[in-house]
Amino acid sequence: MERNFKLTLCYDGTRYRGWQRQGNTADTIQGRLEKLLSRLLEQTVEVHGSGRTDAGVHAAGQVASFRADTSMDCAGLLSALRQYLPEDVGALALEEAPDRFHARLSAREKTYVYRVWNSAAPCVFERKYVYVFPRPLDLAAMERAAALLLGRHDFAAFSTGRKKGKAASRDLRAVEIARQGEEVRITYTADGFLYNMARILTGTLLEIGAGDRPAEEIGEIFASQSRERAGFTAPARGLCLLSVKY
Amino acid sequence: MERNFKLTLCYDGTRYRGWQRQGNTADTIQGRLEKLLSRLLEQTVEVHGSGRTDAGVHAAGQVASFRADTSMDCAGLLSALRQYLPEDVGALALEEAPDRFHARLSAREKTYVYRVWNSAAPCVFERKYVYVFPRPLDLAAMERAAALLLGRHDFAAFSTGRKKGKAASRDLRAVEIARQGEEVRITYTADGFLYNMARILTGTLLEIGAGDRPAEEIGEIFASQSRERAGFTAPARGLCLLSVKY
Repeated sequence: MERNFKLTLCYDGTRYRGWQRQGNTADTIQGRLEKLLSRLLEQTVEVHGSGRTDAGVHAAGQVASFRADTSMDCAGLLSALRQYLPEDVGALALEEAPDRFHARLSAREKTYVYRVWNSAAPCVFERKYVYVFPRPLDLAAMERAAALLLGRHDFAAFSTGRKKGKAASRDLRAVEIARQGEEVRITYTADGFLYNMARILTGTLLEIGAGDRPAEEIGEIFASQSRERAGFTAPARGLCLLSVKY
Repeated sequence: MERNFKLTLCYDGTRYRGWQRQGNTADTIQGRLEKLLSRLLEQTVEVHGSGRTDAGVHAAGQVASFRADTSMDCAGLLSALRQYLPEDVGALALEEAPDRFHARLSAREKTYVYRVWNSAAPCVFERKYVYVFPRPLDLAAMERAAALLLGRHDFAAFSTGRKKGKAASRDLRAVEIARQGEEVRITYTADGFLYNMARILTGTLLEIGAGDRPAEEIGEIFASQSRERAGFTAPARGLCLLSVKY
């Protein structure tokens, strides 16, 4: 009998070309998972993620779903996954899900964190999970900008590679900016994220924090719907998908 | 005029053969530092660490001293070091030290932490800095053993490769055992550590925590002065030199 599963994962994205399956299965998280699950369950297994993460982006709580005809129990399958997954991909939890559950289509909210190492001092142990931006940051200005970003907007200007006319409306429900020692963490919660959205929001907030542009430009950037008006795309290495709500 | 410098360093020891200079300078922290300082200061610079760390051991606060005939100021030299050191070695601070200061000979106390990942759940992001030991640990038993380890003892049984008759007396001033979620951290403070001492203490405490031997054996192990009586040498990857006091 075919059953539906919900798998929660973490990964260090450093050496992967992102979530989405491509030519060489070893290069992507989805490819790795599908290959391993197909072998363990002796059938072709297709895995759906809550969304794609870009090359180099990390996840502390990515969610995936897959269907399989198996009588194996979740604990046994989870333990087999842990045994065979590479050390930079971790299976956190596995449970049977209602038949209608789909990791992407059922997702209601996602939270990403972007970690900025805002210091000239070295960051050795966490170096693969932060973006080094040593210029002084005006957090109050960044918070003024964040307040203007909140709510439902057309985020087309904060996205790349969009097809014209495709819906770009998203509800940005929270942006938290917090300094912890030499690190500044920016946490975004939304009903969904466009391609590169968290990274372009971060680049824009960093330009505002560094004084390169005023917080009050956010309104104009939204109105322009033009990628060129927003800030740079902050590097993938600082971004991590924290959690997905269903 | 020759001046004396005190350098505070951190490093991810994963890809190094330890602190001490050997054949290929790129393989060791001391070798890397001496090569870089000699080039920057255009003279042969010899660097003394507070002590050697083994291959694969990390440091969050290693201290080194070196003498050089230079008029360069500390801020400029620190910034040059940061520019040229590899990303897994960080220069935290550089200051001029009194002429009699020597990183090893002047050291009064060192603190090491050993990080144990005590769970079957994956540890992806910190995987290079922990030792995975998933068996249940009785922390109360480990604390009873830690209490017996405290104070001045002959630690010969907790060391490898010792020359007969060489003083093995050390004053172990603190052992703290703390669980933080799925991790157990064991922090050791002593006036000095013998070769492999922190790792063998950890292996012994883990065997006690796992119920393989009673805490009360500590006295017999001390009395035996025999390496064979103590526990296994816990892997280098979990160990980190936290700080050195002068």
